[in-house]
Amino acid sequence: MLGATGSVGGSTLDLVGRTPHVFKVVALTAQRSVEALAECASRHHAEVAVIADASQYNALKERLSGSGIEVAAGASGLIEAAERPADCVMAGISGAAGLGPTMAAVRQGRRVALANKECLVSAGEIFMEAVRRAGTELLPVDSEHSAVFQVLATAEPDAIERIILTGSGGPFRTWATDRLARATPEEALRHPNWSMGRKISIDSATLMNKGLELIEAYHLFPVEADQLDVVVHPQQIIHALVAYRDGSMLAQLACPDMRTPIAVSLAWPMRMDAPTKRLDLVDIGQMNFERPNEQRFQALGLARQAMQRGGMAPAVLNAANEVAVEAFLGKRLGFLQIAQLVAETLELAEAKGLLGEATDLDGVLAADASARRLALNVLRKERLPPVH
Amino acid sequence: MLGATGSVGGSTLDLVGRTPHVFKVVALTAQRSVEALAECASRHHAEVAVIADASQYNALKERLSGSGIEVAAGASGLIEAAERPADCVMAGISGAAGLGPTMAAVRQGRRVALANKECLVSAGEIFMEAVRRAGTELLPVDSEHSAVFQVLATAEPDAIERIILTGSGGPFRTWATDRLARATPEEALRHPNWSMGRKISIDSATLMNKGLELIEAYHLFPVEADQLDVVVHPQQIIHALVAYRDGSMLAQLACPDMRTPIAVSLAWPMRMDAPTKRLDLVDIGQMNFERPNEQRFQALGLARQAMQRGGMAPAVLNAANEVAVEAFLGKRLGFLQIAQLVAETLELAEAKGLLGEATDLDGVLAADASARRLALNVLRKERLPPVH
Repeated sequence: MLGATGSVGGSTLDLVGRTPHVFKVVALTAQRSVEALAECASRHHAEVAVIADASQYNALKERLSGSGIEVAAGASGLIEAAERPADCVMAGISGAAGLGPTMAAVRQGRRVALANKECLVSAGEIFMEAVRRAGTELLPVDSEHSAVFQVLATAEPDAIERIILTGSGGPFRTWATDRLARATPEEALRHPNWSMGRKISIDSATLMNKGLELIEAYHLFPVEADQLDVVVHPQQIIHALVAYRDGSMLAQLACPDMRTPIAVSLAWPMRMDAPTKRLDLVDIGQMNFERPNEQRFQALGLARQAMQRGGMAPAVLNAANEVAVEAFLGKRLGFLQIAQLVAETLELAEAKGLLGEATDLDGVLAADASARRLALNVLRKERLPPVH
Repeated sequence: MLGATGSVGGSTLDLVGRTPHVFKVVALTAQRSVEALAECASRHHAEVAVIADASQYNALKERLSGSGIEVAAGASGLIEAAERPADCVMAGISGAAGLGPTMAAVRQGRRVALANKECLVSAGEIFMEAVRRAGTELLPVDSEHSAVFQVLATAEPDAIERIILTGSGGPFRTWATDRLARATPEEALRHPNWSMGRKISIDSATLMNKGLELIEAYHLFPVEADQLDVVVHPQQIIHALVAYRDGSMLAQLACPDMRTPIAVSLAWPMRMDAPTKRLDLVDIGQMNFERPNEQRFQALGLARQAMQRGGMAPAVLNAANEVAVEAFLGKRLGFLQIAQLVAETLELAEAKGLLGEATDLDGVLAADASARRLALNVLRKERLPPVH
């Protein structure tokens, strides 16, 4: 379990803890939460606990002394944890920090349950090439991709006509452009269906989240970019659909609870219990569907262009978006300017020849860093007035 | 193709005719439409054409003379057609007449695409025992059961929590009881989504159709009676759903066109083209779900009871319903009296000890005949006044 103290980690350990006779926890890692990591490692009898922040090594060592649990730290500790013999590696470290350990697990041929976005968004081509080479199985944990995975099963690529990801449309779905221009972080953080972290809540409000998911789906599933689509579905009961050449559409539905897709990834092709609220269609009563408004929510179109452009474009898009979201949360950027900053960064990166093919993880990390610098420059130069 | 000139036959041959290099038609059968059968047999280069009505043998023989197509007739001709070497037998003869030929195909170990209701409703236990014994594959063609089949795939029985069949609710979904009492055959024949035969349209209006489908699902899929449910979904876009123990629900959606489930059954586990209207969720815009009203539509509860009762109860239910629907169409019975006649027939049959275990097809056919006599007796004795 890479990233044991985060939200995916917590949900995974909740499930694992309910059937300890079925699961054996090998390794648990965390960024810097020594106490939470030590507590998880003790409760689940992990073999090894790894703290990414090497300066916390002694604190963790001390906290677990006498427990019989090995302790390691730093980037090499994460890699070592990812490479330990195990039936499945849950890749739950978010951000670029997850790239190295997740790739290490793939290279060892481990079955990987993937909850890290950057592996596919920023390093999609390299990552999927490693998956193919290792002949390993990749199980997406994101609810939309898990939905596609479940109804795609063993379908031949030529059986598939389209893949449709659904999205709630975010808290600003019905807002007009002038109101969007004045939207505050507080308003953006009120997601209608899921309780999520701050970054992903803003991405959900801009629809960049759906855009990044399109890029992930493009790498995960055997379809071309123009076979991927997004439909706004405010109730977010249906998470994704696959359309087949015989007119059938298969879909997965579930109440919003990460434990469902996590359980799918842990047990596949079997099913395991997940103590989630069951879906009652009669209770729900109604489902709605509409086209996303790409005029008002330009992030979606930008992501689609980056997906079609390929190379380093998605990595640059993602990095610029992170800078923009942070600036928005810090009230240094207006809501509509998030997409604007991303677009300008992509243009600058293109002009500087930074959108070429990705050849290795270091190249991706370098592109990511360059994009952040470019985005910060734009932010500074344009002196975008604080809007709140 | 058993039943080549009916609605399932027509749709099947439409699909087959589009890829003649993939399909070879072995045998075609029809009840009595010599001209239509001869035309199909010639167009699809069948090896043999069989007319069930033996008195039409010479007419068919003459019509196909010189074509090189063999001609046969009668019950034995149907059985012989069903037993011919073939990769798949499409069992599209409706009613009790389909039992013998479909069972013959199963016993030969043929993969059977099943579009006959009686095999499962009236003879479910016997039929499924024959399927198990022959180790053959059964592919349901009914849109609801095809939907379940597609999202059940290779799931272990203990992975499944519930199976939900959807229904439009019929043309009288919103009608109050007093209005239902005066409903005419003309009104009942106006089905909101599908253009269907008269019998099935009435069954759709009473919800008996959904009840019979529950019984079919009970035999087809590895669930107990209390794991089966019906949800009213007026748009009938989602045809069925399977709920799994991890909180996932998988569903199949499609525009109402029999060619989709037929294509699924012909190509499974591959997919083949079907020239059907594609589903556009944004066009549809909205889906609704409600609980069926079993007070107003008592046929559903009767079917559920017969399913739980087992033995000959479903066969008796089905036979009594056919008598009742015919009487309703002939304006000799009111709409609400359809369920009433079925309920009274079941009670009489129970009292006469006619609901015991089914041991063979002849026993089922005898129960069917007895139930029809009982139902006609009730109809006559009670002198139910013509209501229109």
